[in-house]
Formats: sequence, structure tokens, C-alpha cells
Amino acid sequence: MQFPTFIEPDFNREPFISAPDVKTEPAGDGFLPENFYATTIYPEYFKIDGKWTMLHKSRMDCVVVIKNGMPNVVEPRRVKKGDEVVVGRKDDGRAGVYVHAGCFEDNKESSDGAFVFRTGQSRESSYSREYDQLYEILKNDRDKGYIVWVLGPACVFDYDSRNAMANLIEKGYCDCLFAGNALATHDLEAALFNTGLGQDIYSKKHVENGHYNHLHTINLVRKAGSIDKFLEKYNLDTGVMHALTKTKTPFVLAGSIRDDGPLPEVIGNVYEAQNAMREHTRRATTVICLATQLHTIATGNMTPAYCETSDGIRPVYIYSVDISEFAVNKLHDRGSLSVKGLVTNIQDFLVNLERNL
Amino acid sequence: MQFPTFIEPDFNREPFISAPDVKTEPAGDGFLPENFYATTIYPEYFKIDGKWTMLHKSRMDCVVVIKNGMPNVVEPRRVKKGDEVVVGRKDDGRAGVYVHAGCFEDNKESSDGAFVFRTGQSRESSYSREYDQLYEILKNDRDKGYIVWVLGPACVFDYDSRNAMANLIEKGYCDCLFAGNALATHDLEAALFNTGLGQDIYSKKHVENGHYNHLHTINLVRKAGSIDKFLEKYNLDTGVMHALTKTKTPFVLAGSIRDDGPLPEVIGNVYEAQNAMREHTRRATTVICLATQLHTIATGNMTPAYCETSDGIRPVYIYSVDISEFAVNKLHDRGSLSVKGLVTNIQDFLVNLERNL
Amino acid sequence: MQFPTFIEPDFNREPFISAPDVKTEPAGDGFLPENFYATTIYPEYFKIDGKWTMLHKSRMDCVVVIKNGMPNVVEPRRVKKGDEVVVGRKDDGRAGVYVHAGCFEDNKESSDGAFVFRTGQSRESSYSREYDQLYEILKNDRDKGYIVWVLGPACVFDYDSRNAMANLIEKGYCDCLFAGNALATHDLEAALFNTGLGQDIYSKKHVENGHYNHLHTINLVRKAGSIDKFLEKYNLDTGVMHALTKTKTPFVLAGSIRDDGPLPEVIGNVYEAQNAMREHTRRATTVICLATQLHTIATGNMTPAYCETSDGIRPVYIYSVDISEFAVNKLHDRGSLSVKGLVTNIQDFLVNLERNL
Amino acid sequence: MQFPTFIEPDFNREPFISAPDVKTEPAGDGFLPENFYATTIYPEYFKIDGKWTMLHKSRMDCVVVIKNGMPNVVEPRRVKKGDEVVVGRKDDGRAGVYVHAGCFEDNKESSDGAFVFRTGQSRESSYSREYDQLYEILKNDRDKGYIVWVLGPACVFDYDSRNAMANLIEKGYCDCLFAGNALATHDLEAALFNTGLGQDIYSKKHVENGHYNHLHTINLVRKAGSIDKFLEKYNLDTGVMHALTKTKTPFVLAGSIRDDGPLPEVIGNVYEAQNAMREHTRRATTVICLATQLHTIATGNMTPAYCETSDGIRPVYIYSVDISEFAVNKLHDRGSLSVKGLVTNIQDFLVNLERNL
Repeated sequence: MQFPTFIEPDFNREPFISAPDVKTEPAGDGFLPENFYATTIYPEYFKIDGKWTMLHKSRMDCVVVIKNGMPNVVEPRRVKKGDEVVVGRKDDGRAGVYVHAGCFEDNKESSDGAFVFRTGQSRESSYSREYDQLYEILKNDRDKGYIVWVLGPACVFDYDSRNAMANLIEKGYCDCLFAGNALATHDLEAALFNTGLGQDIYSKKHVENGHYNHLHTINLVRKAGSIDKFLEKYNLDTGVMHALTKTKTPFVLAGSIRDDGPLPEVIGNVYEAQNAMREHTRRATTVICLATQLHTIATGNMTPAYCETSDGIRPVYIYSVDISEFAVNKLHDRGSLSVKGLVTNIQDFLVNLERNL
Repeated sequence: MQFPTFIEPDFNREPFISAPDVKTEPAGDGFLPENFYATTIYPEYFKIDGKWTMLHKSRMDCVVVIKNGMPNVVEPRRVKKGDEVVVGRKDDGRAGVYVHAGCFEDNKESSDGAFVFRTGQSRESSYSREYDQLYEILKNDRDKGYIVWVLGPACVFDYDSRNAMANLIEKGYCDCLFAGNALATHDLEAALFNTGLGQDIYSKKHVENGHYNHLHTINLVRKAGSIDKFLEKYNLDTGVMHALTKTKTPFVLAGSIRDDGPLPEVIGNVYEAQNAMREHTRRATTVICLATQLHTIATGNMTPAYCETSDGIRPVYIYSVDISEFAVNKLHDRGSLSVKGLVTNIQDFLVNLERNL
Repeated sequence: MQFPTFIEPDFNREPFISAPDVKTEPAGDGFLPENFYATTIYPEYFKIDGKWTMLHKSRMDCVVVIKNGMPNVVEPRRVKKGDEVVVGRKDDGRAGVYVHAGCFEDNKESSDGAFVFRTGQSRESSYSREYDQLYEILKNDRDKGYIVWVLGPACVFDYDSRNAMANLIEKGYCDCLFAGNALATHDLEAALFNTGLGQDIYSKKHVENGHYNHLHTINLVRKAGSIDKFLEKYNLDTGVMHALTKTKTPFVLAGSIRDDGPLPEVIGNVYEAQNAMREHTRRATTVICLATQLHTIATGNMTPAYCETSDGIRPVYIYSVDISEFAVNKLHDRGSLSVKGLVTNIQDFLVNLERNL
Repeated sequence: MQFPTFIEPDFNREPFISAPDVKTEPAGDGFLPENFYATTIYPEYFKIDGKWTMLHKSRMDCVVVIKNGMPNVVEPRRVKKGDEVVVGRKDDGRAGVYVHAGCFEDNKESSDGAFVFRTGQSRESSYSREYDQLYEILKNDRDKGYIVWVLGPACVFDYDSRNAMANLIEKGYCDCLFAGNALATHDLEAALFNTGLGQDIYSKKHVENGHYNHLHTINLVRKAGSIDKFLEKYNLDTGVMHALTKTKTPFVLAGSIRDDGPLPEVIGNVYEAQNAMREHTRRATTVICLATQLHTIATGNMTPAYCETSDGIRPVYIYSVDISEFAVNKLHDRGSLSVKGLVTNIQDFLVNLERNL
């Protein structure tokens, strides 16, 4: 896998040389100076004490707090009174802030793709090449990267795709999983009863009194105290949550107002859930989002277009897969070449992927 | 407005007469006895001390705790150790539990509609009659009911529909509003800048540096300390949040992992948000859900098919309006005659509604 | 209504002055010289005998046959052996062909909209301004233009929207209607039985043996010999086909392989149907396409971006209204500023429109 | 592959024994007696001269003409003056007409599935079992059946799926293909230029002047006189049309008003196209419809729920695969157990299928 080459900005030329140091103003308690500067998905540099310094582990729509001569990215809600927040909205270097949007752009492939990325994806887009690239990226990142999966509940409503996802985890293609209470609950119901909301996940038959399976599963997990204790207690050995537990792969289950239960591991405060997710997106090299608009957009918001690896700076690849063009293009529109949208049923996507890896 | 007549169950016949008292078992800390009984969307009766007693202010997928001879509906996560929880899964009366699913069914209109409701709604369904019924219901419930609106952000991205919604609130057609951080933020951005995510909500022109409008608005509200202080400070007098504030209409803003900010009023813990929402769905006579799958399903989950008013028991009407058949039918499928789905753009829906009321 | 000003090209400058005459080669029987030039949606000029001459009544993807010193637009399938067909693929004037893509582009509104038009339309786009412009355009074109409607069957499945469309026709807002056998059949079934495919178009009740209503209606029209004789024979006075007949508004019903019947007026050969449609798109000033991908794309293909009226050259406005982003953007993508997409249910669209005109 | 057993109706019992002969009335020229009987998708029997006789090679929404003591199914538009057309709308046997709707229904699998089939298919339905059944059916029907494919243009816009479809044809899994001018044109453009509408079907790059590729391809085929002569002349050996030509598999290309060209093989009169399609659906044992609402519904209309093979009467299996729930359920709703809907991208569907066969 040959990633696009990162182009170091040359700060030994104008306007960088003559640019002043970045300006800051102190924050209030949980609010910002009015002219705050907001981060982007690209690598950003700030001139501090006459020196251009890159911001690490960034994400968009945050602010930059200068501390001990170093820029730090902070969510606006987490600033504290007196934090020195970068202000000003020029980002071309002349005011001490430089957004390096073209960091990979001289790369041939990227520029060839320039037109393509601007077009929304549709059911009639060709996806052969996206699949081939994804196989390559995953094979590389399995060993050298950090692959984050973001899963909607539909992934486990189908027998084959639930198995495919579990296999992908067991084969090492998942370093972290983001989901909600529903994905985990449906998966555990399938492990216990072979049903999803009371419907057999293979034969589709509705089991008698099957609507209880869902609530009953939640109750048993709550009683057991945790997902892994539940799996152990009932000797369950199938599905996504089992594969995560078996391989000790971390996961973040974020709460939503739609939840029954919740399961013990679900984080009820959404901003704490964001914090937990962010710990993993900071490390992400590839993100695969399937059939969940809520979690996909949340994850997209906190994932930059680039990552710093031991091999240097490279793009973070984000795949957004959904059956709805609207959902796919919602993320796709953010305008990064490294976001790929595929309009399809994620059951087929997962089965395809697992067979080719 | 003539609502379907409620049919009182006749407990002076079998199997009700010979039925035993309902059985209970004690709950654990946050978990249930394994054979717990789960509530439905219909009126339910429990035989306690030889007497059939109706459960009040119910909602589905909860449990029933008997206390001082009365049944109480409780979310499973809120049960406390030792609570006496109803157990058993028979609900035809013979075991002391009776679900009155046919409470309105001898009503002529309902039974005529029987076949219709089973069919999913689509872009080709006829909606003339749904609109006419909705006008009648809203005119009635404006004075005699409790109308809950559930709004997705698209409602305020358009100039006309944002005004229409604000007018409906000012005219008294909204007793409570449920939404997320995004709806409120986009609405306040429109009040301040006339934009939504930096795009003019009428001309659609993209304002320069307009992406800051969103974060800037949030920051000003956080600095002001609350939405009403922000509106007052900047003398803003348009939009949904202004109309709510002006008319002192309550609202619940539930947090999600997708949020920027959040605004001060947003409830970050989703289970507390559920509790806050539930205080209003308990009173709801009509619920109108627009363009938000998350909030719509959350609200649908906690809204029964009937309500108790001073005029007696009548249906709660739930309207689910969305451009996606999938989203509409997701709620529609729950099988209550009183759920109406309309597949359309909610901008047109709101403008239509406001012109006809 | 102020239309964007048409900018006459200035042929008294280079490269137009030095450009050679356009080149032609003879066609075969129903096929073209290999290097044929294909027309666009914009005004086009051809240098013939040293003079630049505009092509009239054009449409895209056709060829230009020079006859008696004049350029004529011809569908490729209609060329005859020996026709002198323009060849070459340069269209900047230097080879005798000039495509005037920027004919309206210095117009302020258009250029402001430049970015906007490139973005696909979605359920979250703001449509207030589109509606306001459409009202203005229709009020103008009612008297001074030629308004073509393209209707899918969903328009007549709903009581209110069927009435709204009939009223629009009666009020003079329709100069020609394109549809298929289904729209006309469903409309006539509604006139006779008040049903669409056996379902009451207001109450939605399924009439007993109602599936016969459809086939029975077709049979009665075939027996009567024509739609107007059928309407007269059974004294029918509602709906779209009645309004067209009453106002003597022309219509083209194009056949498809999905047809039952067909009705007598339906043109079974699709290429003859194209010819019949083209007679009207040549005159069109505004085209409104509702809920039919087949007829919308067919009409879009044969409608240019401009028209020649007694007041000069102005844009043809094409509205594509559908509940599916995919369908809307399919036409929208052709890249003309004068194509407007609205993602909504056409029932609401029609009812809205009729109330505002 | 074990098909559901066909249950012969027992005519040696009431009401069949006492039923009168079926009644007929003469048709007019292209129109029917008013009380005509319309056929269904099920096996039907008519009592003629005291004997119950099955109607062969039926399809729904047609009429039955009795000739020489035998019932014949005829499209209404094809009746001739004086044809003796069956009249009456009772179909339970008592009036000489018997619709055998339950012909397979005692089969265990079918009745278990009863509830399932009534539910619409969605993006969240489980499809594992549908795939497994489809593999089995295709393996059986490859040798013992007649497999008809109905293809929309999206099938050939993608490199992998175009190859997959061509391979399926070459491996014997296609006995006949229905499509329109667009599918064939895009496929031949891909064979010649590796593009679809000027965009590379693998890399997605837009070729310069690529919009000509489409029209140019059509022109070359028209010049060559036929698809096979074109393929030969340019030594083309990829794609769907090549595979059909190579294997001498019949195809029907039906015209539509959306067509450019058309290619020489396209049937411009849609009712003649229906006739040509019907010759194949009469023989069909399995029908697979991909990403085309027009051709899918047209084919569905003319395909019964059963077929007569050398092994006896068995279901015709119809698969409708589309990314839109609306399109899938449109056919699915016709209420036959043998219609299976899959909501997915047909590129993935084809690639999946080819890998598993």
C-alpha cells in the first residue's frame, strides 16, 4: 500500500517568515473569546515564539489553547477560565495560523480524483475501485494502523453479516468499535436466542412472545453486571460483542434517548461518550461507518483528514456505507478526498469484505 | 371532533371473575425478576386484592410495580431492590393481567381502517384525509389537549417552514417541544445571522466564513448562560426558540453524540432526557414528529395509544412525517391505528399546516 | 418578472472573425459521419458562408444538418442519407461552431447562484425562494409563455392534489401535459369510481372487487373510442383529463411496457411519442416535472436551457420535483442554472402551488 | 432443491360438481364485454362442457377467450371482435371459474412464511436465507428451468458487476435477458471505451470529451447494423451484450421515451415489446429483476406465480433487487409468496451471486 506522500510546508518563505505570532485571548468558564479560531480537518500550524508548530491529534470545530508554548486542541465545552485561546479567522499563515489543506494534493491520484470527490455518491456510482482500495488499506492497517468501526444495528440483524463482522474482528481487522446500546443488545439477543427483536435472524420467523427476547436479554446482562460476565455465564460464543470480548478489543457504547436498558457498558452522558470516542479517533488510521447516521456523523466530526504514524503523516480513510444517498453524502460532503461513500446494504458490504480479506 | 368511543372492559364475566390476583416477584438493584411482565401501548388492568385496576400514564416496554395495592409503571432501569414487579406473560386476563387492545376497536372508523393501517405508507399514498383529520384534531387539542412536537433540524433550515413553526407555537398549537441541540442551534443561528450552517435560509447563498456562524452562535448562548438571555441580549425576535420563550412553552433538548456545544439547556445524560420527555408524553393527546428518526422513535417508545382526559379515554394521535418511507414506517409499524405516517418534506408539511389552521 | 438578460455574442472579434466555415460530412441512412458534432442545451452558432447563424429550437445530443445555408437540429435517428451533418468537436468558435454557454452568466443572480447549483438538492435544502420564484414565473408564463407539465401517476392518487392539478389547468397554468397511460387511466378511474387502483382516493378504503376498476375504466374508454367521448358518455367532470379536455389543452400520452390497455390516445411507438413531445418542448418556457423519472428525463433531454420568445431569448425553467434525491438530482446534475430540484411529495407541492396562484 | 408441492384441486366435490359452465360474451374490436373476468397470478380453471380445464401459460389482468372448448389467455388489447370472452367476477368455482390461490399453501415452508411475506422488505431485513435459497434455485434452474434476467443500466456502470453479470451468462445462468436501450448502450460503450457516459467504469475518471462516447457508440452500432456485427467489427469481447451474443442467449430490448439512438435491436413499439417479453415469461421458472422499476413492473405484470415444467407445477420465483424500498415493495406487494425483495445495491448483489455460483 502506497499512501499519498505528505508535503511538509516550507516555512522558510513568505508569508510565513514575516508573520506575527498567533494571537490569543482568555476563555471564560465554558465559553470562548468571541473571535476564536476554529480548527479544521487538515494539519494546522501555529506560530508561537517565532516558530511554526504543528497541532497534534486535532479534530475540526475545536479551539486551540496555547500552553507552555505548545498548541493544544480542545473542545469548546472543555475550555476553562483563563485558557489562552487562539483568535482570528485568517488561516493562510499571515496571522500566525496556517491550515495545510493541500498537504497531500500534489499526489497524482488525489488530484486526478479532484473532480470525482466533489460529486455526490449514488446507487449508480461505480464502487469496484473503492473496494479494491479498501482491501489494500485494511490489509495494511491490520498490522500498521488503527481501524475504527462504527456500527448501526442493521449489521447484526442478518445471520451472514453478523458472522462476517465477528470474523473480521477475530482476524484482527478491528482495533476499536463504536456503537450504541441497540447494536450491542441486538447482537447479544442473537447470541442467546438467535433472534433480533424476536425475529429469527436467519429464517426470519417470528418467535412466539419474541418481543420479550430483547428486554429479557438486557435484563440478564444488567443482572450479570457486564457484557463479558453475561457471555460467560450463558456460554455464548457468537457475534460481534463476543468477538470483541474474546479479542479484548475496546469498544465505546454511546447512549441515546432511543435506548431500552441500557446495558451496563453504555455511557449515558453523551459528552462523556464523545470524550471516550475521541481517545480512539485520535489514533485512527481508517474509520468504517456502517448504517448509522448518528454515530457516523459524530465520529466524522472528531476525525481529522490525516494521521501521524510511525511511517509519517498519511490520510485517515473514512468509509461511510449506507443504503441512503442522503446519509452517505452527508459525511462525503465535508470535502475531504479521504472520505469515501458507498451506497449499498451493509449486509452485502460486510459479507463481501470478509470474503476478500 | 368526534373521537372513537372507549369501550370499558366488562370485568363481571369470565375469565376475569375467576382469575387469580396478579403475581409479583421482587426486583434487584436495577434489574428485574426473570419472568417480568412488560407493558404495551394499550390500556392495561391488573387484578389486585380481587379487584381489576387500570394502570395509569403507561408506556410500552416498562414493568409494573405494585405498591399499596396500586399498579405503577416503571422503566426497568429505575426499579429498586425489593420492588414488587408483576411477573408472567399471559395478558388475556386469566393470570390477573389484561391488555385491552381492542379498547377502541368497535368504533366504525377504526375497524374500516383495519386493513389500511397494516399497509406501509409510501410516496404514493393519499394524504388528503390525514390532513383533514389532523386539522380537526389540532383545532380540538389546542384548547382541550396537550400537543407535543418532535422536531428535526430540517424544520429550521428553510425560511418559510421556520416561520410556520414559530407561528404555530404562537397560535397555541404547541404545548411542548422535543428536539436536540442541532434544531435549537440552527434556529438561533437563523435568528442572529439569517443563516443555517452559514447558508442563507432564504437565498441559499453561502456567507463568507459562514461555517463560523454555527459555532459562534453556540458560544454566545453559552456565554449568555441560557437561550432566553441570549435572545434578550441580542434583541432577537424570530424563530422557533423565540416563540417557545415568548409563549413560555416548555421544551426538552436532549443531547446526542453528534452535538457541538452544547447549548446550556441541553440535557447531556440521555436517560435524564428520557425522564424529562416522559413528563410530557404522559400528558400528550397528540404528538407530531418531523424529520428526526432518533427523537421520533424515542418519543414513540414512551407514548401510549390512549390518554386519559377530562372527557374520558381517547386515542393519542401520533403523526410521523418524514421524506423517507423507512423512517415513517419504522414508527407506523408498531401497529396502532392512531399512528399516522406521512411521507413528505416537512417544510411543505409545516407551511401547509400553518396556512390551514 | 425580470428574467436574466441574454448577452448576444460578439462575432466581430477573434476567434470568430478568422474562423473557417463549419465542416460537414454526409450522413448514411439513420447513421452519422463518425466525427459528428452533438448539440448542447445552450444557444449554438454555426459559421456558414462566412456568417454566424444561430441554431433555432435546439435540444441536446442531436446533430446539425446544414440545408440551404441554414443549420437545422435533427435527432440522429432521423438523419437521411446524404444529409450534410456538422462534424468536429471543438465548440469555442475556432472551428466554426460556437456554444454560448455563458449566454446569461453575467446576470447577477445566476453568478451568485453559481456555487449553489453545483450542490445536489436534498431533503434539507431550503425551498422558500424556489417557491417564490416559481410563483412569479408561472404568473408571467401563464400569459406570455408556454408551460409544459410532466406528470407521474402519484399526482392523481390523492384527492386534493388531483383537484389542485385540475384547477391549475383550468386557471390557464398548463399549456401542454406529458404523461403515460397510467396517469390518464388512474385519473379517469377516479372520475368514474373515485378510486385509484380500487382504493378510494380520499378515504383510502379498498372497494370490493376494486382491482377491476382499473381494467374496467380502460375498457370503457377503449369502447368509447377516446378519452373525451368517454368523459361525455359518462358525464364525468372531475380530474386532470377532464380539465385538459374542457380547456382544449393538448397532451401527449407516451406508451411504456408497463401499460395496461392502452387508452386510445396513448402513442405506442416511443420514438413517435418523442416526436410528439418535441413539438411542445420546442415552445416551452417553463417545464414542471412531477414524480416520474422516465418522463422527466425524457423531457429534460429534449428541452434546451433557453427559449426564443417575442420578448427575446430567456432561460427555460425546468422544475424537477420528486421525493427521491436521486431522481431530482439526476436532472439537476445536467449543470444548467435553470434546472431547479425540489425534494418533496408532489401532493403537497401541487396543493401548495394551487393555493398560491 | 425441493419445491413446494403443487396440490391438485379436487373437482369431485362441491361447489365444483354443481357449478354451471363458465359464461362468455363476445368481445368488440379491441374492447371487452363489460362484465369481463380478469385473470390472476394463480392457476385458474374454467368449467367448459361440464369439465374443469386449466388455463395454460397465464398471466394476470388478462381475459380468457374460449375457443374450441379450451380457455386461452389473451391481453385485452388483442381481443378480436366476436371472441368469446369469459364474464363474471366470482372465482370460487360456483360460477364455473376457480382461482387456485392456495395451490402451494399447505406446504410447510410457505405457510410458516405467511406472516413474513406481508411485511415489506427494508434495509434492515435479514437476507441470508434469501441468498441461500436463490443459490439453490439458480443451480437447479440452470439446467432444468428458464431464468429470465431484467436489468437496469446500473448493472454495467461498475467494472466488477458488469464482469459478474457477463460471467453468470457465460456459465449458463441466464436463459433470456430483458432490458432497455440504455443498458445495452452503456455496456457496449464500456466494451469499446471502458467508460459509461464518459466516465471510466473502474477508476471513475472523466475522459475528455467523454460525453461523446455514448452517442458515438450508438452511431457505430447503427452503422454496423446490429449489436453482434458491431462486436465483431471492433473485436470486442467483454460485457453483458457480448456474453449474450457469444452464448446465443436471447434478449429483448424494449424502447422508452428516454432513449437515445436507439440501437437496431430495440423494439420501438412498447406493445410489440410486451409481446416479445411475454414469449419468454411464459417459459420462466425464475425471474431476477435488478435496479429498474419500469422493466421490473412490466415483467412482474406478465409473470404468473406458478409454472408448468416437465417435473410438474411449481412456483415461479421472482427476485426484485433495488436500493429503494419503494421500488422493491412495489412488486413485493402483489402478495405472492414467491416474490422476494432484496433492498441492496445491485453491484454487490451481482458480485456476491457470481462468487457463490
